[in-house]
Amino acid sequence: MAAPVLSPSRRLRRTPFSDGVEAAGVRAYTVYNHMLLPTMFRSVQEDYRHLKEAVQIWDVACERQVELRGPDAGRLMQMLTPRDLRRMTPGQCYYVPIVDETGGMLNDPVAVKLAEDRWWISIADSDLLYWVRATAIGWRLDVLVDEPDVSPLAVQGPKADDLMAQVFGDSVSDIRFFRFGVFDFQGRDMVIARSGYSKQGGFEIYVEGSDIGMPLWNALMEAGRALDVHAGCPNLIERIEAGLLSYGNDMTDDNTPHECGLGRFCNTHTAIGCIGRDALLRVAKEGPVQQLRAIEIDGPPVPGCDRWWPLTANGKPVGRVSSAAWSPDFDTNVAIGMVRMTHWDPDTEIEVAAPDGLRKAIVRESFWL
Amino acid sequence: MAAPVLSPSRRLRRTPFSDGVEAAGVRAYTVYNHMLLPTMFRSVQEDYRHLKEAVQIWDVACERQVELRGPDAGRLMQMLTPRDLRRMTPGQCYYVPIVDETGGMLNDPVAVKLAEDRWWISIADSDLLYWVRATAIGWRLDVLVDEPDVSPLAVQGPKADDLMAQVFGDSVSDIRFFRFGVFDFQGRDMVIARSGYSKQGGFEIYVEGSDIGMPLWNALMEAGRALDVHAGCPNLIERIEAGLLSYGNDMTDDNTPHECGLGRFCNTHTAIGCIGRDALLRVAKEGPVQQLRAIEIDGPPVPGCDRWWPLTANGKPVGRVSSAAWSPDFDTNVAIGMVRMTHWDPDTEIEVAAPDGLRKAIVRESFWL
Ligand SMILES: Nc1nc2c(c(=O)[nH]1)N[C@@H](CNc1ccc(C(=O)N[C@@H](CCC(=O)O)C(=O)O)cc1)CN2
Ligand SMILES: Nc1nc2c(c(=O)[nH]1)N[C@@H](CNc1ccc(C(=O)N[C@@H](CCC(=O)O)C(=O)O)cc1)CN2
Repeated sequence: MAAPVLSPSRRLRRTPFSDGVEAAGVRAYTVYNHMLLPTMFRSVQEDYRHLKEAVQIWDVACERQVELRGPDAGRLMQMLTPRDLRRMTPGQCYYVPIVDETGGMLNDPVAVKLAEDRWWISIADSDLLYWVRATAIGWRLDVLVDEPDVSPLAVQGPKADDLMAQVFGDSVSDIRFFRFGVFDFQGRDMVIARSGYSKQGGFEIYVEGSDIGMPLWNALMEAGRALDVHAGCPNLIERIEAGLLSYGNDMTDDNTPHECGLGRFCNTHTAIGCIGRDALLRVAKEGPVQQLRAIEIDGPPVPGCDRWWPLTANGKPVGRVSSAAWSPDFDTNVAIGMVRMTHWDPDTEIEVAAPDGLRKAIVRESFWL
Repeated sequence: MAAPVLSPSRRLRRTPFSDGVEAAGVRAYTVYNHMLLPTMFRSVQEDYRHLKEAVQIWDVACERQVELRGPDAGRLMQMLTPRDLRRMTPGQCYYVPIVDETGGMLNDPVAVKLAEDRWWISIADSDLLYWVRATAIGWRLDVLVDEPDVSPLAVQGPKADDLMAQVFGDSVSDIRFFRFGVFDFQGRDMVIARSGYSKQGGFEIYVEGSDIGMPLWNALMEAGRALDVHAGCPNLIERIEAGLLSYGNDMTDDNTPHECGLGRFCNTHTAIGCIGRDALLRVAKEGPVQQLRAIEIDGPPVPGCDRWWPLTANGKPVGRVSSAAWSPDFDTNVAIGMVRMTHWDPDTEIEVAAPDGLRKAIVRESFWL
């Protein structure tokens, strides 16, 4: 049977860069925040190799922004996350777990502090806008909550600095990791951060106004010709090697940040006002009983992981794999999975029930990159 | 260029019926509430013909439930919608617009009243769970808000009563429109309503517990052999003919229920406690300045509508089309679009900028079915 196609509809929103993505020959999509997200151009393996050697332009417009504006913006932001935001200054980005009143993860966005009274929350795949807006109303906060017309465009890969310098000037290279600056493109202000969903280095341009999307896309493509620039997208293999988590794949609202290995982004004692703080205090003290781990899976390349693959030890359940792919560079199958405490120590040998049968697997100390 | 495929991942959740859907040869999917929703089996036109003549089983598990349980469940439900719920009794279903504090539509679900203190909200494509839960917390309501393991399976088409009677007994036919009863299947209780996203008649079975999904699917397929039962799905052509709206396609949080022609489901004066009531009072009195309309589009079959198609009159913008398809039965292109007051009268001649050029269009008095 042929792989089912994705039915086009207005509900699956196009992005300001979709025309460019199609012209570049996109071959597969996913849907993320009700929007099209490319997943493959040449092949996942070719895209991977190219990402690690050159530079790619990624349409990640689906990383929508929730904008907070007003005197209570900072207070609301701290209600949403257990990460202590008191020392964060305008110009910084923070990776922030967002939790509900039970400490369950609702999203794992990047928070962008534009000013004391203005934030963007660059969200993963769930309608965080609904949570934030209902919270603002329920608590009668003095803040506006909206989805602005802002679409991130990522420039990722070892040659990202070279490419960006050609379009925005040499000073883009001064941007430090998870900081941003404001740069001009054709008379328009653009927030540019050194960040992105890969460990190959690069930038994210928060493109304000859909109309300027294709002009910027084309300018980057033009400028990057000598650098072998290509349209790309978040790469499944590379993001697993790098241990970059994916909300909805590796975790859901069933999981605490601590279970996701995001305890370092939780300051349960000082994040005063956070809705999930009380629930997380105990977890923070006692630690979780299961946690996401890097897992190496034996054998030939695994098929696509579209559902949990049970992890067992001597036939008993000890966890489940949520993401997996063959890694050419590490010559093994790389995976992310939730593993119970009894089996999460490095080098523990377990089994995984892959769709094509039981395979050996091993828990790793850390991710690959 | 070949149509882009949909990349499988755990984030695009499978349903309890996915194995059945795949065995039946699903050819296209969409994504709805982070879950796979089939859109085509044979072809959209063949599926349409068969739906109108026989009976189909639809995997609409993506119509997830938001469950409200507790003493404040009814109060919370009324906070969410401008429809007056005071006369609703257990055993009834209501189609309810859900609005934010500005009167903007957040979802257009079916509310199922199971008991005075227990409701299911059978949602369209947005994470209403986040809105409802944050509202419950912000207002300190005594209610639990969850997504239960409940997956609707629809049985639609003129022979739906025949098929259902074979599996659940003749008394299923006694269920009235938008009412439900509880029936047994293999020792399990199933909520069965006379409802569904077509105008061909039929039922929706709220399947509680994923494990019973495939047994039920198989039992219905078996029982329906002589009725030419087939796996089906919400059909684009039929739903436009019927004027069944699609959240995210035909309306977003920019629109009030009145703009969507859902004013008959708003009781702005009596829906006391509804969060959007104040904002809607004025709209209800003065009426909207634009409204969704049935639109007939001239010429050969239109291509897929994956973005707004502008509506104009003498070159001036008067609205936009959000859904469109060729209708074999009405021998024309049927469409849904938002039209400004100046041009919404029946038989008004306008133009639509379809991707393949400008076409004549005409505003209709009502939908086709
Ligand atoms: N705009 C922006 N928005 C996003 C993403 C992004 O990619 N960039 N990605 C999704 C959110 N999830 C993540 C996950 C990981 C990281 C990330 O970058 N993590 C680094 C750095 C974290 C830190 O040190 O603060 C790490 O090594 O884990 C960023 C967003 C959706 N929204
Ligand atoms: N479980 C269930 N859940 C659903 C849908 C469904 O389909 N059934 N569909 C989506 C919600 N949207 C609608 C839109 C229209 C109708 C509908 O059926 N309307 C009828 C009847 C309305 C009435 O008279 O109350 C009409 O003629 O307009 C139901 C759900 C998502 N959730």
